Amino acid sequence: MSSTGSDAGDGGLGAPQTKTPGEKASGAASADGSGWTRASCPCCAGGPVEPLVLLQLRAGLPRETKDWVITLIATAVKQGGAGLSAHPGEEPSGDIVVVSAPRCTLLRAAEELGLCKPYRTGAMTAFSYHDRGNFRDADDMQVFLTLAERQYIVKNELEGLRAQRDLKIPGLPEGRLLQRRDNIWQKLMAVGVVQGMFPLNDEDKLKALSDCWYSGNQLTQPLDKIHAYFGGTVAFYFSFLDFYTWSLLPPAILGLILTVFSGSVNKEAMDSISDSKVAAGDGDGDHDDDAQTVSGHMIQAVFSMLWSTVVIEMWKRRSTLLAYRWGTTQLAERFSEPRPAYHGALGVNPVTGRVEPLFPAWQRELRMALVSVPAVGLFLGLVVMGMLCFYWGEARAQGLHAEWDSLLSSVVLYLPSVAHIVYTNALGTAYRQVALALTEFENHREESAYNDHLTGKILVFTFFNYFAVLFHIAFYKQDLPLLRKRLASLLIITQLVNQVTEVVIPFLVDRFLSAPKRKEKKEDPQEDKFRNQSSLPDFPGLFSEYIELLVQFGYLSLFSCVYPLTAVLLLVNNLTEIRSDAYKMCKLFKKPFSAPVAGMGVWQTAFEVLSFVSVISNCWLLLLSPRLQELGQENGVTGTNVVLVAVLMEHLLIMIKMVLAKLIPDEPDWIRVKREQNEFISMQALGQQKQ
Amino acid sequence: MSSTGSDAGDGGLGAPQTKTPGEKASGAASADGSGWTRASCPCCAGGPVEPLVLLQLRAGLPRETKDWVITLIATAVKQGGAGLSAHPGEEPSGDIVVVSAPRCTLLRAAEELGLCKPYRTGAMTAFSYHDRGNFRDADDMQVFLTLAERQYIVKNELEGLRAQRDLKIPGLPEGRLLQRRDNIWQKLMAVGVVQGMFPLNDEDKLKALSDCWYSGNQLTQPLDKIHAYFGGTVAFYFSFLDFYTWSLLPPAILGLILTVFSGSVNKEAMDSISDSKVAAGDGDGDHDDDAQTVSGHMIQAVFSMLWSTVVIEMWKRRSTLLAYRWGTTQLAERFSEPRPAYHGALGVNPVTGRVEPLFPAWQRELRMALVSVPAVGLFLGLVVMGMLCFYWGEARAQGLHAEWDSLLSSVVLYLPSVAHIVYTNALGTAYRQVALALTEFENHREESAYNDHLTGKILVFTFFNYFAVLFHIAFYKQDLPLLRKRLASLLIITQLVNQVTEVVIPFLVDRFLSAPKRKEKKEDPQEDKFRNQSSLPDFPGLFSEYIELLVQFGYLSLFSCVYPLTAVLLLVNNLTEIRSDAYKMCKLFKKPFSAPVAGMGVWQTAFEVLSFVSVISNCWLLLLSPRLQELGQENGVTGTNVVLVAVLMEHLLIMIKMVLAKLIPDEPDWIRVKREQNEFISMQALGQQKQ
Repeated sequence: MSSTGSDAGDGGLGAPQTKTPGEKASGAASADGSGWTRASCPCCAGGPVEPLVLLQLRAGLPRETKDWVITLIATAVKQGGAGLSAHPGEEPSGDIVVVSAPRCTLLRAAEELGLCKPYRTGAMTAFSYHDRGNFRDADDMQVFLTLAERQYIVKNELEGLRAQRDLKIPGLPEGRLLQRRDNIWQKLMAVGVVQGMFPLNDEDKLKALSDCWYSGNQLTQPLDKIHAYFGGTVAFYFSFLDFYTWSLLPPAILGLILTVFSGSVNKEAMDSISDSKVAAGDGDGDHDDDAQTVSGHMIQAVFSMLWSTVVIEMWKRRSTLLAYRWGTTQLAERFSEPRPAYHGALGVNPVTGRVEPLFPAWQRELRMALVSVPAVGLFLGLVVMGMLCFYWGEARAQGLHAEWDSLLSSVVLYLPSVAHIVYTNALGTAYRQVALALTEFENHREESAYNDHLTGKILVFTFFNYFAVLFHIAFYKQDLPLLRKRLASLLIITQLVNQVTEVVIPFLVDRFLSAPKRKEKKEDPQEDKFRNQSSLPDFPGLFSEYIELLVQFGYLSLFSCVYPLTAVLLLVNNLTEIRSDAYKMCKLFKKPFSAPVAGMGVWQTAFEVLSFVSVISNCWLLLLSPRLQELGQENGVTGTNVVLVAVLMEHLLIMIKMVLAKLIPDEPDWIRVKREQNEFISMQALGQQKQ
Repeated sequence: MSSTGSDAGDGGLGAPQTKTPGEKASGAASADGSGWTRASCPCCAGGPVEPLVLLQLRAGLPRETKDWVITLIATAVKQGGAGLSAHPGEEPSGDIVVVSAPRCTLLRAAEELGLCKPYRTGAMTAFSYHDRGNFRDADDMQVFLTLAERQYIVKNELEGLRAQRDLKIPGLPEGRLLQRRDNIWQKLMAVGVVQGMFPLNDEDKLKALSDCWYSGNQLTQPLDKIHAYFGGTVAFYFSFLDFYTWSLLPPAILGLILTVFSGSVNKEAMDSISDSKVAAGDGDGDHDDDAQTVSGHMIQAVFSMLWSTVVIEMWKRRSTLLAYRWGTTQLAERFSEPRPAYHGALGVNPVTGRVEPLFPAWQRELRMALVSVPAVGLFLGLVVMGMLCFYWGEARAQGLHAEWDSLLSSVVLYLPSVAHIVYTNALGTAYRQVALALTEFENHREESAYNDHLTGKILVFTFFNYFAVLFHIAFYKQDLPLLRKRLASLLIITQLVNQVTEVVIPFLVDRFLSAPKRKEKKEDPQEDKFRNQSSLPDFPGLFSEYIELLVQFGYLSLFSCVYPLTAVLLLVNNLTEIRSDAYKMCKLFKKPFSAPVAGMGVWQTAFEVLSFVSVISNCWLLLLSPRLQELGQENGVTGTNVVLVAVLMEHLLIMIKMVLAKLIPDEPDWIRVKREQNEFISMQALGQQKQ
């Protein structure tokens, strides 16, 4: 890094720190010649310093406040600081601070996080600071920790800062007092001293990454490089996107075959797009065709049920493998400090023995049961109510139009749709606020638990919003041609809209509005480049990306049997999606912080639930298929018996699905062996240690 | 033990070993004055010796063979022996050997097994030999390890004996060669040198246990004492029996209330027992009664679904708690030696690094998939075929009887039943052999895996055997009155038969046939008492006990809505069952070996599956209820819609069940904290150790 990025010839940022071996290393920080504060431990006092994170301070902040922040960052952990290095930028009174991390702080934090790194033997082992000599490359931070890990550690250290005694932030009006154990960083953000914090891009690495990621015709993505540069959450998203896209091949091929071989499905699909009423009426084709259609539907339904199970199970295996490769199988989040916003009465954590805020689990569960669940339920109810009002309004409007038949009344025809769209959007915005407040109120101890609960809440709502209408059409109206029409238009239109809003608009904005302002030359000082990065918009997070995949997966596994070409469309969409997402990540937004994670978290659960619901949905869609019912009646089978057969089939398929999920182990065999090895070694260590 | 049991004045068995401090402790064993071999380590050479296990040798075995066995038992583990103490009994050439275990062997084996014992701090911690000083009571084996644990350890050590080099058993004909790494014990059993091995009873402890277990009117069972005396598997069975019996109270009360309040249910039940045809025909009661019956059925069905979920989830909690209390939460079976019959190419275990037979998991899975599953399926098919043949035969026989109407033809009436019973029994016997062979063929590494797979196989078959007829009546014949009749008779008759065959017959045999032969006096030498114990029949294992509970639970949760008094009958039965089982354990059989276990193993899964199936069964039973269908028709609801409502309800209830199961955590909070504490400590130990 610094060997490539720091030779831009600026006035100290990223330049090698002057080694001062004779100087006594003190706990307090002091800026040396290069402008960087000196590391608080002697072993890290020399060597190059790599700019990792940029702090955006409030413009016009008093000099003494900035100095105080820099000192705080550079003070040793034992003295209540963050144990990092800081650089005040070109002008000492400027509004940025660049932060780096010395080796010892990084290593200790790596142990604290529970990161696994390659041991002398080659096995991924939870890193231990005491045993650092036995880990490969443990003295070269550029190799040992990925850029994303180093940056996350800096963020983590800063956000974990707590006042060791009551103190006042210098240069701020009175009353801004920090009490003992208050979180300093939260306070600094709240009073506006720190306006933002983001990881710095490494131009060369980014260039190398984008070259092998989206600029060519690559079939695979450089997952390890993505992980190294952007970190765990991002890498897991792209891994899943990659895996899922390739797994679309079998259903796409099947869909194509079915479409080609059963001409009637094709014709019907065309009909249904042109006019659903006609398609619903023409059930008088010859019986061979009917039987073919039904069997085509059946093949598609059974296939997509099994497919979704196998895909999810195989993904679990792949996810375990990636977590092992990326050293995140033994994350120790629950043993480390709680997240900054966590509050509760101070007490001794019974597990770790450390003094920290405690909040009883039963109280959290009570809050979830009595507040969160009813609130979410209420909003889901409001969605359903909105939908019903919309249908009612539309029927009324059409009635009025038929009665009056004037220009005014044709305007009235659009009213329900407009009202529904406005209502849905308002509801969505309100819900996001409510979900945030509720999750904060639940007071989760771990960052990941907080994220999972927040994501879960928004997920349920968004999903409901997307699928309520489709389920209504499929199971209440039982209008399959309309469902088919709706699905086709959703697939095509929403994908287009998504691509446009997600990529094209940001691209245009960037190219024609923002970029001219931050023309960059090779000779520009490093600091200006940093400033340019800070003018990019914030990365909006992966939520909308994941929900897009989930909705896709939903269309495919829940309803695909009514429109066999779904998988083909999705495959085409995803192949471009991979590239546009990669481009977006690299060029259009600030680099995000990304925590080391062991998987997709709550998203995996969501996909699993969906793949379960798909069995039920497919069975009932088949049952509702008007052709099947006609066939049944012609062959003298009563409606009740058809239903009973469907129920039996559903149960059988669910059983097969569960057996299948059980049979495919969640981790590859060799990873199981490695895990057991670790357990065995740790069991032995425990036995030996207390001798 | 020896302080109470050994003062019977015999010639050395159980008497204090003469302490010979001056003597050099050698690795090889030598019998000292008391008759016991000397322990191989100096620290255990003195002190009292407790007779734990009796070996029954072949009568008339050459003296040199017996001596060889005794030497083998007493040789130190490092020299290839079992590291135990042995006593040749009264006569040196007699056919018994009494085995005991010195302290060091017990402690090392306790570590090897992964037993948890109370640490200095009071927390249950995996025992470590190196750290023995910090464990409470680690120098008093009578307190530190339970009698059952000590006896199990002796068995385990003996069965784990492997030849360190090729050797010949002296006194046996040529050709009885043991090759290197052959299991010695299996060989000794195979050639008949050792005819049996069983743990010795401790008269005083047994007396104390039985006093507080079954002789009074105790409402609770002394679970800890049972665990200490009989060991893990037995204690878990009685814990579950206890827990399950008390949890029968709510459904019993509900059943009584429903029976009293809806007289018609009562009347109907009576009718159905007297004649099913009449009950089926009299659907012309007044509608209030009908509605009441239906709502009664519904309450019962919904209640029993929720009840079964809650009971199983609460049992899991209780089971975790018991495992914690009994120190079996961290059993290390997969890290210790494989079970004796396990075979495979010698290799290095990748996890522990020890040389042992290896057998790839995929090969085992292949064997299961291609051999075991089809074989079990075939037998289940044979059960169904037998049932169908029986029905066909019965129909034919009745036809013949109606045609001929002679004495001969009335004999023919019984033929199908007789044939079916013979067929079922033959099938059962054959299946047991097949299941044994299949499980052996699957070559499981761990004893518990072997047991679970064997139990699972027999369980599926037995359960199928019991319930196929009921399911056939309920869902194929859809004859609810017949189901009710059948259920009532099964409940009453099978319980009676079980009690008689399980207790009364063994009791009578014991009292009038066996007991007179082994009249016991206080003054009898210890050895005669041991011989008396060896004349008791072998304990038949807990399989039939568990299957009885499972079948009960099945009757209750699957079909109880047709016969509300089921729970009452079961409650009464189980209250006596507890006592009779306890009596049987203490008096009528040899004491069994019992491994330390962390729960009920595969039985828990069986109960869970059953409680899941009960939702489906109850929904369809309700649907089939003729009154509900009549009600529907009267109110103009079509059959199809009734079915659809039932499906909807079933799905809803399954969802509630799953949410409920998720909401009740499997371990109490304080045990979770203890577990996390252990994980934290072991994580830290791992980090510190490799410094």
